Amino acid sequence: MGWLSARATIDRNHMTSSRRLREGFIPLAILESTAAIPLRRQLYNWFLRAIAEGRLRPGQRVPSTRRMARELKVSRITVLWAYEQLTAEGYLQTARGSGAVIARSIPSPVGSDRMRTTGAARPPGRKVQVSRQTAKLLRLGEEQTLPITGAFRNTPALDLFPRRAWSRLVSRRARRSSPRDMGYGDTMGEPVLRAAIAEYLGTVRGGRCDESQVMITAGSQQAVQITLRALLNPGDRVWVEEPGYPGAHRALLMAGCEPVPVPTDAEGLIVERGVQRCGSARASYVTPSHQYPLGMTLSASRRFQLLNWAQRADAWLIEDDYDSEYRFGSKPISSLQGLDSDGRVIYIGTFSKVCFPALRIGYLLLPHSVVAAFRAVREAIDIFPPTLYQQALADFIREGHFARHIRRMAAVYADRRECLISALERHFGRSVAIVSATGGMHLVALLPRGMDDESTAARLRAAGIACSALSACCLERPRQGGLILGYGGVATDQIDEAVRRLARIAQPQGRDPRHVPSRGRGDS
Amino acid sequence: MGWLSARATIDRNHMTSSRRLREGFIPLAILESTAAIPLRRQLYNWFLRAIAEGRLRPGQRVPSTRRMARELKVSRITVLWAYEQLTAEGYLQTARGSGAVIARSIPSPVGSDRMRTTGAARPPGRKVQVSRQTAKLLRLGEEQTLPITGAFRNTPALDLFPRRAWSRLVSRRARRSSPRDMGYGDTMGEPVLRAAIAEYLGTVRGGRCDESQVMITAGSQQAVQITLRALLNPGDRVWVEEPGYPGAHRALLMAGCEPVPVPTDAEGLIVERGVQRCGSARASYVTPSHQYPLGMTLSASRRFQLLNWAQRADAWLIEDDYDSEYRFGSKPISSLQGLDSDGRVIYIGTFSKVCFPALRIGYLLLPHSVVAAFRAVREAIDIFPPTLYQQALADFIREGHFARHIRRMAAVYADRRECLISALERHFGRSVAIVSATGGMHLVALLPRGMDDESTAARLRAAGIACSALSACCLERPRQGGLILGYGGVATDQIDEAVRRLARIAQPQGRDPRHVPSRGRGDS
Repeated sequence: MGWLSARATIDRNHMTSSRRLREGFIPLAILESTAAIPLRRQLYNWFLRAIAEGRLRPGQRVPSTRRMARELKVSRITVLWAYEQLTAEGYLQTARGSGAVIARSIPSPVGSDRMRTTGAARPPGRKVQVSRQTAKLLRLGEEQTLPITGAFRNTPALDLFPRRAWSRLVSRRARRSSPRDMGYGDTMGEPVLRAAIAEYLGTVRGGRCDESQVMITAGSQQAVQITLRALLNPGDRVWVEEPGYPGAHRALLMAGCEPVPVPTDAEGLIVERGVQRCGSARASYVTPSHQYPLGMTLSASRRFQLLNWAQRADAWLIEDDYDSEYRFGSKPISSLQGLDSDGRVIYIGTFSKVCFPALRIGYLLLPHSVVAAFRAVREAIDIFPPTLYQQALADFIREGHFARHIRRMAAVYADRRECLISALERHFGRSVAIVSATGGMHLVALLPRGMDDESTAARLRAAGIACSALSACCLERPRQGGLILGYGGVATDQIDEAVRRLARIAQPQGRDPRHVPSRGRGDS
Repeated sequence: MGWLSARATIDRNHMTSSRRLREGFIPLAILESTAAIPLRRQLYNWFLRAIAEGRLRPGQRVPSTRRMARELKVSRITVLWAYEQLTAEGYLQTARGSGAVIARSIPSPVGSDRMRTTGAARPPGRKVQVSRQTAKLLRLGEEQTLPITGAFRNTPALDLFPRRAWSRLVSRRARRSSPRDMGYGDTMGEPVLRAAIAEYLGTVRGGRCDESQVMITAGSQQAVQITLRALLNPGDRVWVEEPGYPGAHRALLMAGCEPVPVPTDAEGLIVERGVQRCGSARASYVTPSHQYPLGMTLSASRRFQLLNWAQRADAWLIEDDYDSEYRFGSKPISSLQGLDSDGRVIYIGTFSKVCFPALRIGYLLLPHSVVAAFRAVREAIDIFPPTLYQQALADFIREGHFARHIRRMAAVYADRRECLISALERHFGRSVAIVSATGGMHLVALLPRGMDDESTAARLRAAGIACSALSACCLERPRQGGLILGYGGVATDQIDEAVRRLARIAQPQGRDPRHVPSRGRGDS
């Protein structure tokens, strides 16, 4: 086989063959003339790998360019290029008169006396060490992969977003962008967007702020992450609502914090239970406007209990206001931040629900006292957010599209919610109980006690119906399982059919036979 | 003063006045008719704040809507709206026949017997606790705020970026975006961009990969951060080059890791010195193609020493390949990742230098064995990167703009570098020594021993000349200070003048008077 196989198709078996090498010989340099990579570069790459894998050893002679070209059936120019590059980078050295050898300065790879596998795969038996936090996240299980749209993924009505107006604004900003818009931006985010948000929060949400307190983030998830990094230490305990938002659980684990589940009731998080469980927690993560996933509003008295606790315990309150824009039949309610006279509330908002998730824009509204800390964390994490989308979003808000879209969507979601509730009643009868607030874009259907929601949700996902289990929001075993059904992205005329399919798959068998069409009747 | 001052201009002194309240009275409700916020909302907000600050107490009577409207000189509808909203949210309660009172279920704020200040500022004397990592970052000092463009900020030539082609691609993608492009995207990034990057790396950089190993990040800073989170624990020690990249120092501090400075020489990081200092480090962060800031290339033998060390110590190698695309007079050299047959190299690339920073797109090339771990971390950190820019960048690469831009810029930067070197020689003579590699878009001018580079850089920045001090890249005191001068963004015809100004400000006084034009001669 000598110097072989030029222009042969690639043969991975040959590449990984484990024959021992004789000094002065290179058994295979397989070049592929059809590949995107030039032959000279393929030859160069082959040498690097052969050295890395111990197939070529320091001091070993390599054939002359002339012989190499002949054996590989390639032009000598090709071989010369590769040899020159290898020499320039220090992999080959040319001793006067005696031809080139693999550089003697290169140490033999560890374990090079045994032939090693090619490829970046770890050798069998090596245990890959990931961080402790990551190991915990991996034990949580992978985030379920859900279809991007359709019943009952918890997304907004993406097809009703004013795409034309939006793309016009994006194009305009892209067209007009100057070198200044392309360089390093403000760590806190584009001033024009921060001003628009400060104005919006002050007007609509009773927030108290100026733009110097607003930091733009990559959605609410990054906002939570930055908050934990800035204010909490690994090992700190943090109240979370039970059930609560799994994204917050993940963020807490990632930051090395310990989530403390605090029970909720119709008024939201039960503050005194939190105090009983862990009065010395360093923070509480809450969704006061629209509890995730159950949808209730944190009551006025609980708000003040929470603020009082935070003040006494010197703790932080992380207010995640992820979808408060949509409330049917009532005005947007005030934020916890608006009641905070002590600089303890970190307020988080996002455009993922009111605009669309792929925008990746959320924001933090910070007490003045911690702005510098958050800025320092942001510098270390990702420096600043991308510019163009921020500018386009500022235009979208300032030119009135945003307010118009919210108004329009509130009516759409109220319809979809009504429609989903009647379909659930029609197809499930009394076998599910509906927990639904007067806002948002999802509701929870509680399953009969004893019925496992996670396996039900898995069965539904396998059938192409996106939904998640209430248990996935719980750190403790819930008394009753449920399905979280997003209706934001499902048109009213699709809801009935989707619920019919849902019922067929999820219906506890034999419980309500009227609503369980048998399989095999052709309606698959 | 009773119920007063409606439609008066806002008067913060009054708002924060600390008079004690009598039961049944609300001293001031200052509404501003000219504000963007409707009067009814202003009144509602005023109530919330008064409750939060203890100026209105649980059980306290509030005036009738009629009286309130009269005293405030506003319509009764305005007051009714506010009272209804406050009642709906649980802040007011109406006892039959006896008018409205502040809800008795609301607990008094902590310390409500003393009047508290308004505003979200912390009360005087409260020490704000930030996390330990953040406190360390704050001690590093704020990232210097540099002008976005101009001499000698280390940015690419933003004015030479093909903005028209780029904005065309962005607009096209924005126009054609479907609901699918607006929903939740792949945690690893858009497949179309990952495929384009995998192809590019395989062809040009000798990387070995397929797209399943590529994760899109928000620039290289986030790539480093995700890597540290996924693989290392707080307290782990990590080799860094000395001098090295300050962004990496920040990322390590943020992750709670301890950077171990390892000296460098003309061949890059001195591996045996690393072993002496801390052979049991868990990782090494390196810039093998073009050391930051000094510009040398990690030699072939050091590469293998490093790989061997990593294998013996079971450590990770974090290869930051931030600007290897620009090498003048030689081909792009192979990456460390291309030599790794053991799955230990985490390769980081970025488009901040080859395209522009405001894009916020970088990437990780991962061993297969850790893809799941990185994915889990990303879910917890910010879920996925924004979609549109990824798609536009994929088009930019696939349609040949990227390769063309790199070719064009390499020539431009080579020119600018030559020009900067001659200007430095002209204006500084021998008082600075130039450390310059054959690539990149910055160089280092070493100052005479004993001259303080940080105060010099600060003086320059005060004069509007962006540059950073070599000391800012050092964890230990460097033997010699220097200035890091970016030339990527400075047109050749501006370089001479910029260096002349630089010399006038930075020149060690009295050392080389020929090059120090006296001040006061009108050339300010």
